[in-house]
Amino acid sequence: MSLQAAITQYRARVESKLDHALSHSSIEPCLQDAMRYGLFNGGKRVRPLLVYLINDLLGGRPEQADAAACAIEAMHSYSLIHDDLPAMDNDDLRRGKPTCHIVYGEATAILAGDALQCFAFELLAGSHLPPERIVRLISTLAKASGDTGMVAGQAFDLSHVGQSLSLTQLEAMHRCKTGALINASIEMGYYASGCTDTNTLSSLLRYGQAIGLAFQVKDDILDIEGDTETLGKPQGSDLELNKPTYPSLLGMDSAKTKLADLHQTALDTLASFGDSANTLKALADYITHRSH
Amino acid sequence: MSLQAAITQYRARVESKLDHALSHSSIEPCLQDAMRYGLFNGGKRVRPLLVYLINDLLGGRPEQADAAACAIEAMHSYSLIHDDLPAMDNDDLRRGKPTCHIVYGEATAILAGDALQCFAFELLAGSHLPPERIVRLISTLAKASGDTGMVAGQAFDLSHVGQSLSLTQLEAMHRCKTGALINASIEMGYYASGCTDTNTLSSLLRYGQAIGLAFQVKDDILDIEGDTETLGKPQGSDLELNKPTYPSLLGMDSAKTKLADLHQTALDTLASFGDSANTLKALADYITHRSH
Repeated sequence: MSLQAAITQYRARVESKLDHALSHSSIEPCLQDAMRYGLFNGGKRVRPLLVYLINDLLGGRPEQADAAACAIEAMHSYSLIHDDLPAMDNDDLRRGKPTCHIVYGEATAILAGDALQCFAFELLAGSHLPPERIVRLISTLAKASGDTGMVAGQAFDLSHVGQSLSLTQLEAMHRCKTGALINASIEMGYYASGCTDTNTLSSLLRYGQAIGLAFQVKDDILDIEGDTETLGKPQGSDLELNKPTYPSLLGMDSAKTKLADLHQTALDTLASFGDSANTLKALADYITHRSH
Repeated sequence: MSLQAAITQYRARVESKLDHALSHSSIEPCLQDAMRYGLFNGGKRVRPLLVYLINDLLGGRPEQADAAACAIEAMHSYSLIHDDLPAMDNDDLRRGKPTCHIVYGEATAILAGDALQCFAFELLAGSHLPPERIVRLISTLAKASGDTGMVAGQAFDLSHVGQSLSLTQLEAMHRCKTGALINASIEMGYYASGCTDTNTLSSLLRYGQAIGLAFQVKDDILDIEGDTETLGKPQGSDLELNKPTYPSLLGMDSAKTKLADLHQTALDTLASFGDSANTLKALADYITHRSH
């Protein structure tokens, strides 16, 4: 399957499952409106895509991966709602649309984020997989999302605004802030499939680590070399905010070499899977070569 | 065991387990400080107490209930941190101490709450109970905490400030806002114990519903008849905020009759358990007769 076909197919799938799962009634319909607003925000659904692709690669049927794909997207969506809040990154726009707290107010946005995190775990606990697999999925998602994962990364970022970071600190931050959920997507695809070969998991996690970091390095490069219109945010905004980036720490040439190395590592770790990993390879290519 | 002995023993137990579970390292120690601050806030630990007492009653060993007790308290603590935020109830003090966002700033308080919710599920997923039991525990906690439970109750409360509510709406709000976690404590104690007699669960949930509502009715009565110093908050604050309460909707006499009826219902549902339910009966007595 081509990467574009996979994105289209799995985006539609995860959105339809999420829409269905959120259709129960609540005493506060406005809360659910805000949850939906944060959840259906025009995202590419990269994390669910990874869950489905890894599950496919390891012989799982798509329905085995539905709960994991929905859960990781609910988790990601909650984090975006909270990151945009005035006390955090204070963003009024996301993907060209007003952010959740602009539309629903700050209190509802906080609560919508809280409820979406809870919803992620509820989705997993309610899935029809064997219980031991469900527990693995929940454990993986929880470890990646909390005070040793995503939330720690965001807290670290906020507490170091305007400070210089070492390369080690920058990588540790990205490994938590975005890398943890990318790796969780892969691990959850693996558990959803029922595969139990830990060597396979190790290879796939190396792939995840490489594309997660490559995504960040590329982002930093685009912030300098990209074009404001294509990026959807002002070119040079990292520089202006004095944010530490790979080009600022390594220089542009070394940052590009690092990106190429990470791309190669991603492809190498997939070599043993042959052609069945072509879509995952195409995803690594896309992350490395994208223009926005 | 006397109620006071049970409170003392299980409070010490759950606090020691929580302390141990939170001792892993993070790239952002300040985040964990804020989590601890919210978690170790001098609370009575009523929800963990319920988990342990129900588990005891049904023949479980205390260690079976540790993860559930810790998880429900982490969930409750996160909700207090978020409820106190400026965008929500905007409280500077909780139990006489500055609230989390006053000490750590708003961003860290939001993130500490987020991480504590995640931690609740991580604790359950990491427990040593049989996987199907863990899944039940997680499902129970998630359903009680999200957009059909606790978070919905808080959202409903915030969106009806200054509006008059019917008795049905008031009860529906309390059933979500505080009742859902009280009932979850009971259900989690039941699952932790390994009991599978659903009639037993039904009785215990009726007890939970009665004490949850009794707690709220008593709170409303104390707000009018209590003494500011004993209450730890200004007497009459509900009236001043024009909050709908049981006395304001029913009249004081009927509110007191309702409290007595709920107390009796709680005792009646425990009758079949005989003396082994004495501590749970004492808890119902305490909730009904407390002076603060």
